[in-house]
Amino acid sequence: MTNLTLALDAMGGDYGPQVTVPAAVQALRLHPLLDLILVGDESQISPYLANLPAEFQSRLSVIHTTEVVRMDDKPVTALRKAKNSSMRLAIELVRDSKADACVSAGNTGALMAMAKVILKTLPGVDRPALVSCLPAVTGKPVYLLDLGANVQCDYDTLFQFAVMGTVLCEAVEKKSRPKVALLNVGIEEFKGNSDVQQAAQLLMHTPQINYTGFVEGDEIYTGKVDVIVCDGFVGNITLKTSEGIARLLVHQLKQGLTQGFMVRLLARMLAPRIQNVLSQMNPDHYNGASLLGLRGIVVKSHGNADEQAYVQAISLAYTEAKRRLPEMINDRLASILLDINS
Amino acid sequence: MTNLTLALDAMGGDYGPQVTVPAAVQALRLHPLLDLILVGDESQISPYLANLPAEFQSRLSVIHTTEVVRMDDKPVTALRKAKNSSMRLAIELVRDSKADACVSAGNTGALMAMAKVILKTLPGVDRPALVSCLPAVTGKPVYLLDLGANVQCDYDTLFQFAVMGTVLCEAVEKKSRPKVALLNVGIEEFKGNSDVQQAAQLLMHTPQINYTGFVEGDEIYTGKVDVIVCDGFVGNITLKTSEGIARLLVHQLKQGLTQGFMVRLLARMLAPRIQNVLSQMNPDHYNGASLLGLRGIVVKSHGNADEQAYVQAISLAYTEAKRRLPEMINDRLASILLDINS
Repeated sequence: MTNLTLALDAMGGDYGPQVTVPAAVQALRLHPLLDLILVGDESQISPYLANLPAEFQSRLSVIHTTEVVRMDDKPVTALRKAKNSSMRLAIELVRDSKADACVSAGNTGALMAMAKVILKTLPGVDRPALVSCLPAVTGKPVYLLDLGANVQCDYDTLFQFAVMGTVLCEAVEKKSRPKVALLNVGIEEFKGNSDVQQAAQLLMHTPQINYTGFVEGDEIYTGKVDVIVCDGFVGNITLKTSEGIARLLVHQLKQGLTQGFMVRLLARMLAPRIQNVLSQMNPDHYNGASLLGLRGIVVKSHGNADEQAYVQAISLAYTEAKRRLPEMINDRLASILLDINS
Repeated sequence: MTNLTLALDAMGGDYGPQVTVPAAVQALRLHPLLDLILVGDESQISPYLANLPAEFQSRLSVIHTTEVVRMDDKPVTALRKAKNSSMRLAIELVRDSKADACVSAGNTGALMAMAKVILKTLPGVDRPALVSCLPAVTGKPVYLLDLGANVQCDYDTLFQFAVMGTVLCEAVEKKSRPKVALLNVGIEEFKGNSDVQQAAQLLMHTPQINYTGFVEGDEIYTGKVDVIVCDGFVGNITLKTSEGIARLLVHQLKQGLTQGFMVRLLARMLAPRIQNVLSQMNPDHYNGASLLGLRGIVVKSHGNADEQAYVQAISLAYTEAKRRLPEMINDRLASILLDINS
């Protein structure tokens, strides 16, 4: 088996090379068949490579560029102007088959716009979707898409999301026939808007997808289903709301556990355990959102990911490349469309 | 000051008279100027009134009916068939000025449909909205609307929701110029779909509303703003997602705190405090969703509300009636529409 090559936008994210480069080195250690190309400002990258073990040197290269997409750049600006940005060059390496996937912690809107223009969508895919894992009571991850790539989606797009989410879950979790649901305001057939209702009709008549019906917001985290589909407006707000309420709960818990001497003492003794629970809920544990439906693999890391979280994103891109995810999605879509049209 | 009269759908909710009647008695004790009409099956209600103190007897009456809207009835079925249901009769008491407000823990869809048909919307209101309070880090409640009365809303409806939410927050919290925001996938002006963008434009040019811009999902619980507006599809999923993630966190915490003898012991000693924190997050503390924009006051209680939570819903309806909320909304809307058209 030959090595797989990933291109990393070394400058992206809140911390840039300070996080991305040490994470890259960790990833090389973790995956012996991985090669990495770091794209970014060599003068900022090289200090973190000073002590690179000799056996890693042949597996890591740097492509120098000083141009960077800023976090507050509009997608259209990034697309038109940042022709030599680290983000763009990393995506182009995928397009030119010099890398099997790329990872960036940079500006999400810019990354999605660039990836769509440079890599193009697969046949039968109208819009790429952003998908990520969420924790569930069962301990198994739940895939939610779209997370904000598309603020308005018709039923056909929702249907494509269901197919792509299914293939991703099969590929990464090695789960056969993952359960798919549409996020809705009720589980009864008549609930929701016309788009979710029509998408439900389509999915019900697609035996290749294990469609189980509607789920409500409070069922996301039960692990009742493996893949949950919604438009990007709803998905983005759902994800961020979850982060907000988790933060509120932690705040209340801290407040409640610092009043009174005995309570404070007991809480301090329990702190490592509580910390452990909370860190399991930390989105960094599930870092790495995949942009699905493109002719190439693009993984988005949280902007504020730390080294460990960024390694997660690299590993996700590595797994997707190993399984040749775009080809899998392409094949499945083609086969389903053939079924529908026959 | 004369007494205010509330009509209660005594049969609504998962527990019916077992919860609603004792809660009614508690509410009479809490509000000396409150009269109550219980609508429902007298044979099921009267056992809970056996020990009613004499001083309350003149303030409580029962209107007998055996018909009930079931939790799984479709709104249209409830509307056409349940002509003598406890829910419908309670709403009709408001329409006929025999009650100043009504409360039901019954089928939400049926309640909204009946309330709209029987009470009618105020001039300038296209659709009534369902609104409720959420907890925030600041300790002050945040009003979120719509929570599911309208799965599709245009910009004009979102604008009306902002006005109605403002008036409710002023009336119940006695807060002047509450901060209003639109829920969106980003805070930048160019983010979101055309409806939130157009609603933002309208609100920006309405000095009577203290519009502060867009908020993202993770800002709902920070208490940064007082009123948050979105369509019913997003609002319903936001609310239920919050319940789901809170439940997951509690589950994880319980799991994490039951492994190991010392941890278990310490956790047991801390349990009352942790319980106290979690109960503050309990949606029952914020029980009572208001249906705004009607020519009368309708408050929806959680279906599974306990006695205490149901008292909350009665108290909310009482406050709204005392402040004459529909008249306030009507006046504000008229004044704003006059401003816009002048």
